[in-house]
Amino acid sequence: MANPTACILIIGNEVLSGRTQDVNVKFLATRLGELGIPVREVRIIPDVAETIIGTVNEVRARFDHVFTTGGIGPTHDDITSECVAAAFGVPWEPHPEAWARMDRHYAPGEFNAARQRMATMPRGASLIENAISIAPGFTIGNVHVMAGVPRIMQAMFDSLAPTLAGGAPVLSRAVHTARVPEGRIAEGLAAIQARHPDLDLGSYPYYRKDASGVAIVAKGTDAAAAEAAIAEVTALMRALGGDPVAGEPPV
Amino acid sequence: MANPTACILIIGNEVLSGRTQDVNVKFLATRLGELGIPVREVRIIPDVAETIIGTVNEVRARFDHVFTTGGIGPTHDDITSECVAAAFGVPWEPHPEAWARMDRHYAPGEFNAARQRMATMPRGASLIENAISIAPGFTIGNVHVMAGVPRIMQAMFDSLAPTLAGGAPVLSRAVHTARVPEGRIAEGLAAIQARHPDLDLGSYPYYRKDASGVAIVAKGTDAAAAEAAIAEVTALMRALGGDPVAGEPPV
Repeated sequence: MANPTACILIIGNEVLSGRTQDVNVKFLATRLGELGIPVREVRIIPDVAETIIGTVNEVRARFDHVFTTGGIGPTHDDITSECVAAAFGVPWEPHPEAWARMDRHYAPGEFNAARQRMATMPRGASLIENAISIAPGFTIGNVHVMAGVPRIMQAMFDSLAPTLAGGAPVLSRAVHTARVPEGRIAEGLAAIQARHPDLDLGSYPYYRKDASGVAIVAKGTDAAAAEAAIAEVTALMRALGGDPVAGEPPV
Repeated sequence: MANPTACILIIGNEVLSGRTQDVNVKFLATRLGELGIPVREVRIIPDVAETIIGTVNEVRARFDHVFTTGGIGPTHDDITSECVAAAFGVPWEPHPEAWARMDRHYAPGEFNAARQRMATMPRGASLIENAISIAPGFTIGNVHVMAGVPRIMQAMFDSLAPTLAGGAPVLSRAVHTARVPEGRIAEGLAAIQARHPDLDLGSYPYYRKDASGVAIVAKGTDAAAAEAAIAEVTALMRALGGDPVAGEPPV
């Protein structure tokens, strides 16, 4: 059976402007791969209602799961939640459980209008727990709406993950060698890829002061096939004068 | 006059799988903002021909400039160049100048079929210099095709940048304070944003062991307006019991 697919939407001007280095894609892509829900596309979009609504509707039709990060805080530029409601064509209204949790959390008078926006959600949303800062994320349909702050997003994903129906985990096996440039291994590598059409064989040059070289990574859901392909790559590296080492090169 | 817009396409399974932490978006977004060509969207897509061709054609129609990174090496998974040719409906053929440069660079017999692919480009492409590893990128129409390895991409962008017709630089001014949570500054901040519709006022909470707080960043092409808005934010922070400090919080 084919694996379910995922799309990640990073919502926020701060990533598009270069202010903020995104780290959510790597975290989510890694975890979703382990769950057998490989990420097939990522979009980074601004805090613009029309763009968010249009993009959510486009990608929720094309992928099995959509994971959004960003734009669910209390400030004027946090418009993800109301845009997701608009995308689904449902009211954006107080979520009773989220409202109750936040009302309990804040001192009297501190659960103000701005914070109440964080307890306002598309009708029919189910909550994603936030163990760090209370205000929950939510799921509606196949769209999972999470915070942008990495620590909070990660806590939300930890709580969401057990509810996701995954597929066969995407495994990876790797080998690397110095002294064999990509341009010399390319031809033999293409032949190995052709013999293993169900695997994704990636070639990644690396540059180090002491020894530059290339890492070859085989990804797929069949561990034996990935190991067989990497064994062939290892033999190829040796034939080309390399000194192959299992795994990825040290960072 | 409105600023020209940019879209970045990160092409590569290695970013989508979580193997590789992308750093090209932050570099390009920062540099393009300084050139007055703000990035309006980023897509990260796999090494799949249909996806690359469709995405290139969609975004080159919607944005003034498209910058791609990744997929122009010598291996079987490097298919960006031929896909861009297909997107433009032009032949993919040896580029005489790129071919001559690479032929000169390699020892006899080493400019093999895999490397010759790196000198094969859409007809009509103009070269983007590669000061690091010879094989050039290229521009066709409003699409700029660059390497994925950050060091090489950055060198290519340095050579490309002077040829780009930019707009007014996007400037940013910031102020931050501990002890004022986002949820308390939100209402006053919305009023300041409403008074400065041509600016983009972003609110970014930060978390430190010693002092968590919030940073407010004003972005726009009018420095005086950005400074005026940040002065209003500074006064608001003080009124809420904060101790505002100019600029972004230290990393």
